Amino acid sequence: MRLLILQEKLKEGLNIIEKISSKSLTLPILNNVLLSTEKNFLNLTATDLEIGINWWILIKIEKEGKITIPSRLFLNFINLLPNKKIKLEVQNNNLLIECENYKTQIKGISAEDFPIIPKIDQGESVLIKSASLCQGLAQVVDIPVLSTTKPEISGVYFVFNKNLITLATTDSFRLGEKRIFLKDNFSLKKEYSFILPQKTAKEIINIFREKDAEIRVYFSTNQVMFEYLMPETKHSQAQLVSRLIEGEYPNYQEIIPKKYTTQLRVDRMEFLNQIKTASLFSGKINEIKIKADPKDNKIEIFSQSAEIGEYQSEVRGKVKGEPVNISFNHRFLLDGFLNIKSSEVIFELNNESGPGVLKPVGDDSYIYVVMPIKTT
Amino acid sequence: MRLLILQEKLKEGLNIIEKISSKSLTLPILNNVLLSTEKNFLNLTATDLEIGINWWILIKIEKEGKITIPSRLFLNFINLLPNKKIKLEVQNNNLLIECENYKTQIKGISAEDFPIIPKIDQGESVLIKSASLCQGLAQVVDIPVLSTTKPEISGVYFVFNKNLITLATTDSFRLGEKRIFLKDNFSLKKEYSFILPQKTAKEIINIFREKDAEIRVYFSTNQVMFEYLMPETKHSQAQLVSRLIEGEYPNYQEIIPKKYTTQLRVDRMEFLNQIKTASLFSGKINEIKIKADPKDNKIEIFSQSAEIGEYQSEVRGKVKGEPVNISFNHRFLLDGFLNIKSSEVIFELNNESGPGVLKPVGDDSYIYVVMPIKTT
Repeated sequence: MRLLILQEKLKEGLNIIEKISSKSLTLPILNNVLLSTEKNFLNLTATDLEIGINWWILIKIEKEGKITIPSRLFLNFINLLPNKKIKLEVQNNNLLIECENYKTQIKGISAEDFPIIPKIDQGESVLIKSASLCQGLAQVVDIPVLSTTKPEISGVYFVFNKNLITLATTDSFRLGEKRIFLKDNFSLKKEYSFILPQKTAKEIINIFREKDAEIRVYFSTNQVMFEYLMPETKHSQAQLVSRLIEGEYPNYQEIIPKKYTTQLRVDRMEFLNQIKTASLFSGKINEIKIKADPKDNKIEIFSQSAEIGEYQSEVRGKVKGEPVNISFNHRFLLDGFLNIKSSEVIFELNNESGPGVLKPVGDDSYIYVVMPIKTT
Repeated sequence: MRLLILQEKLKEGLNIIEKISSKSLTLPILNNVLLSTEKNFLNLTATDLEIGINWWILIKIEKEGKITIPSRLFLNFINLLPNKKIKLEVQNNNLLIECENYKTQIKGISAEDFPIIPKIDQGESVLIKSASLCQGLAQVVDIPVLSTTKPEISGVYFVFNKNLITLATTDSFRLGEKRIFLKDNFSLKKEYSFILPQKTAKEIINIFREKDAEIRVYFSTNQVMFEYLMPETKHSQAQLVSRLIEGEYPNYQEIIPKKYTTQLRVDRMEFLNQIKTASLFSGKINEIKIKADPKDNKIEIFSQSAEIGEYQSEVRGKVKGEPVNISFNHRFLLDGFLNIKSSEVIFELNNESGPGVLKPVGDDSYIYVVMPIKTT
């Protein structure tokens, strides 16, 4: 292999690739990035055996070939180089790197030993704006917890139906559901659904959040591929392939309350600050109390602990329905208010023991369901 | 105690006080801040038994009194309040806090149990700009390491003589010396010197770095006091008292080379980047090699490790004296270049085995001495 490449082009690709490289002690080659030539492209590949990623850079190849070298070291080194032409050349399982006065040799491992990333570019697929996908995922991705007894709820549940993508997550104390409507009507022959590992979902947000382009999702039985298209040419720039979580996702729709006994309408930032302040006094069980009365539109927040002291405050807002006095884990409540982006929030309650529901005002694409602490 | 205080005034003091509060499990009262009234001032006090700090806020006191409450909790709570008047009141060993709709009670510990911070406002003292002191300290403070066998070199050595303050630190592999010249000639009757714990030096930087005012240093046998004066009124705003390290500081002047065999003059940022890049390939003993020849003003940097690969580059600069080929620990060299702020650096070498000396060009107030790695 021999080629010339501009530092910023290589850096862009490596920054993304390196996130997927594993820090494996048992399989050292997984710490490496595979560099290989493919017609007029340099192809960068990394995998941790759960997620695999390919990245393409259009350049002139002087001589074909391939090698794998440690991705972290390679990225750190390239980051320190000036934005000039870099010469890459494979010699005796070493990668020679030259740039201005810099001259380096990095020891490699043979490309033959690198695992193959499967390609899934057959069958049906769907096109979605990367910003919509990443923003939607960000509103639900932090809810699941890794569970060995219930692995199926440790990921993000995707459902594709007509022009609607639904994302759902839960940890059995709370539940988030985001619906993304696609502008272009796409005609999937059937409904598709899968459970994506939380780690993959987080990587997708990490990698594509800042990008302004489209992502094509390809369906397969045990795997899914997210293909990132170059904004200008719609040519494939990156392909991220992930394994899926096996099992059946619970019928979560059942636990979303269809009605309420009390409805609060509050300012998001004010309520959020009140939860934070009250949490300082909530003690070990994280309990904060909300008391609301429609008579005088009074919403009060309480917390106390025997060791620290007690807290009490009033929040502005509107109250409909019956008076209520209910306790929540402040962390679960805070997460809900943080996931919502609107300036006002609807908070629907179902007596002292039923689940509460948070909804952004003016946006019916998101709901957050949270179980109260039963104090009796 | 009962008083009204503006949130931002209380927040400013607590932010500084809280840094000194200890996180002690054996003596819980050390986690607390002492609030006490003193004529027209609210006085905040904290200590970890090594450092003690007092902070004064001028306000109207409605009723005198004192109490101690957890400083971290108090700070976190005050930070979340709006910048409005806060009412503080002591009732039955609780501190009541009211601000707009917020109402809190924090449990306290009796002020009688709080340790007394000694006052050292007698005897001779010296006035210094807080920016000069903090910038000077920052250039030497990271060099010492905590040592139980040689406790006397684990601090910062201060010498006050005529209008010169000298700060020196070492870890026996490298040494930093900073001289601060005072504009106003002060007439100390004798020379004063002490060894300040590294922790105190770091806290002084943390607390006073951003401030534009003067600090008065008071000398005493086993302790020192740094008094921070309010910029407008020159009234005492804060007093920080620290214990000193016992023992005699080594005669470090002896190991500063008086001459050199080779002198390099290099661009600081370029050399710094080259050290960083070479360090990626320096392997476990952190060794990087510098080769310089006055014949063609050639300065080269090398590093290699059997596992990773090798690195080689040229740096622009001027070479005087004899050709040299010398090895350094890249971390020690990097620290020296980071402590220096000038755009060009003089690097004086003494053959392959003598200490190297870094000096900022155009500023003779700082030197950094570093021992080479002896490879034979």
